[in-house]
Amino acid sequence: MLTLFHHPMSSGSRYTRLILGEYDVEVELIEERLWHRRPEFIALNPACTLPVLLAENDLPVIGATIIAEYLDETRGALKRSRRLLPESPAERAEVRRLVEWFLVKFENEVTRHLARERVFKLQMAADMGGSSPDSTAIRAARNNIRQHMKYVEWLAATRDWLGGYHPSYADMAAAASISILDYLGEIDWNEWRAGRDWYSRIKSRPSFRPLLTDRIRGLAPVAHYGDLDF
Amino acid sequence: MLTLFHHPMSSGSRYTRLILGEYDVEVELIEERLWHRRPEFIALNPACTLPVLLAENDLPVIGATIIAEYLDETRGALKRSRRLLPESPAERAEVRRLVEWFLVKFENEVTRHLARERVFKLQMAADMGGSSPDSTAIRAARNNIRQHMKYVEWLAATRDWLGGYHPSYADMAAAASISILDYLGEIDWNEWRAGRDWYSRIKSRPSFRPLLTDRIRGLAPVAHYGDLDF
Repeated sequence: MLTLFHHPMSSGSRYTRLILGEYDVEVELIEERLWHRRPEFIALNPACTLPVLLAENDLPVIGATIIAEYLDETRGALKRSRRLLPESPAERAEVRRLVEWFLVKFENEVTRHLARERVFKLQMAADMGGSSPDSTAIRAARNNIRQHMKYVEWLAATRDWLGGYHPSYADMAAAASISILDYLGEIDWNEWRAGRDWYSRIKSRPSFRPLLTDRIRGLAPVAHYGDLDF
Repeated sequence: MLTLFHHPMSSGSRYTRLILGEYDVEVELIEERLWHRRPEFIALNPACTLPVLLAENDLPVIGATIIAEYLDETRGALKRSRRLLPESPAERAEVRRLVEWFLVKFENEVTRHLARERVFKLQMAADMGGSSPDSTAIRAARNNIRQHMKYVEWLAATRDWLGGYHPSYADMAAAASISILDYLGEIDWNEWRAGRDWYSRIKSRPSFRPLLTDRIRGLAPVAHYGDLDF
């Protein structure tokens, strides 16, 4: 069985788990807390980032978008209509652009700040000191959510799925990021009708189920987090 | 002819130009200064990042790694031994890991700070105010160069090319970043024997020539910048 080093509040990790789920790849999950800088983990990935997939023959495949390309080449290419990257280079470029939007831009402007301040610092505090959340960083990240959700709303309102006519890596990347914020109660769904409809469709996919049972000790999700009909 | 929006001191832009050169794709270059936030450019790329390739039918392909995948699918796949991504999924993952290393990690720890403080602020000052370079940021970035050059040295000493047996996207990404630092005189080549040998091989490729004639007004490159035998 393959092994995935991940963290439940890392958007790249969630993205990878969704893809593995969509392609029915069984995987053993190992939760990695990067701030421990485990030597065995750094030997696998000198950049000390998540996620890392131990693929066939224990080959380490490093980083969410790289794992996604690897899975497209080794799994997706055989999936026909269930493939999560379209066939044409132009459509593939559009899907990849959106993946980068969520896993890099949205990540740097919103997700990683809220994950660090509200989750990682809590976990660090429990096992190695840590510090209290920085309310300025939290406020700045929260201020950026609206612009991104507006973009999601526009994509959801004008396309069948965020990346085009079919579910794609773009939906998985967006849902991975948004589900972390949703766990933390950071999304006001009343504002986003098309976005909410899209998210509820993604959330209902079997690949999403394991994410809905993720729990952070000491930080329960909002009440509607696991609801398919929220 | 295709069009590339780029900046001579953006590593992703240089990476793309090297690939286009390797694949003999003629391209018109338009220098984009992101801080102007040109509405026409933002219409092409709402994330307002470089590079952007206007490909066939004026399709905007956005971001260095995404352009690289697009060019692999539309050009590289037909190039046989001159293809810059290997054939096997495992080797492709290793090349992509190194590309991400240079265009994300090295970029965030070194290149973008030095480009911003030493080049962009100079250009901003000339056309819209700007501020003086932040010497703390420069010092911090400089402190990180050594670790990365050690890694380049190790890769160059243990492999034929950085990503394996053949020239690949990994070499182009590393050379793109390092050539910016070299322009700025930030690399002490005496320290890195294998790295220097590798860089001189890359620098001698015809695809590299246009980069060696890049000039920033008011900031001449170090004397050896254009030398193939430095």
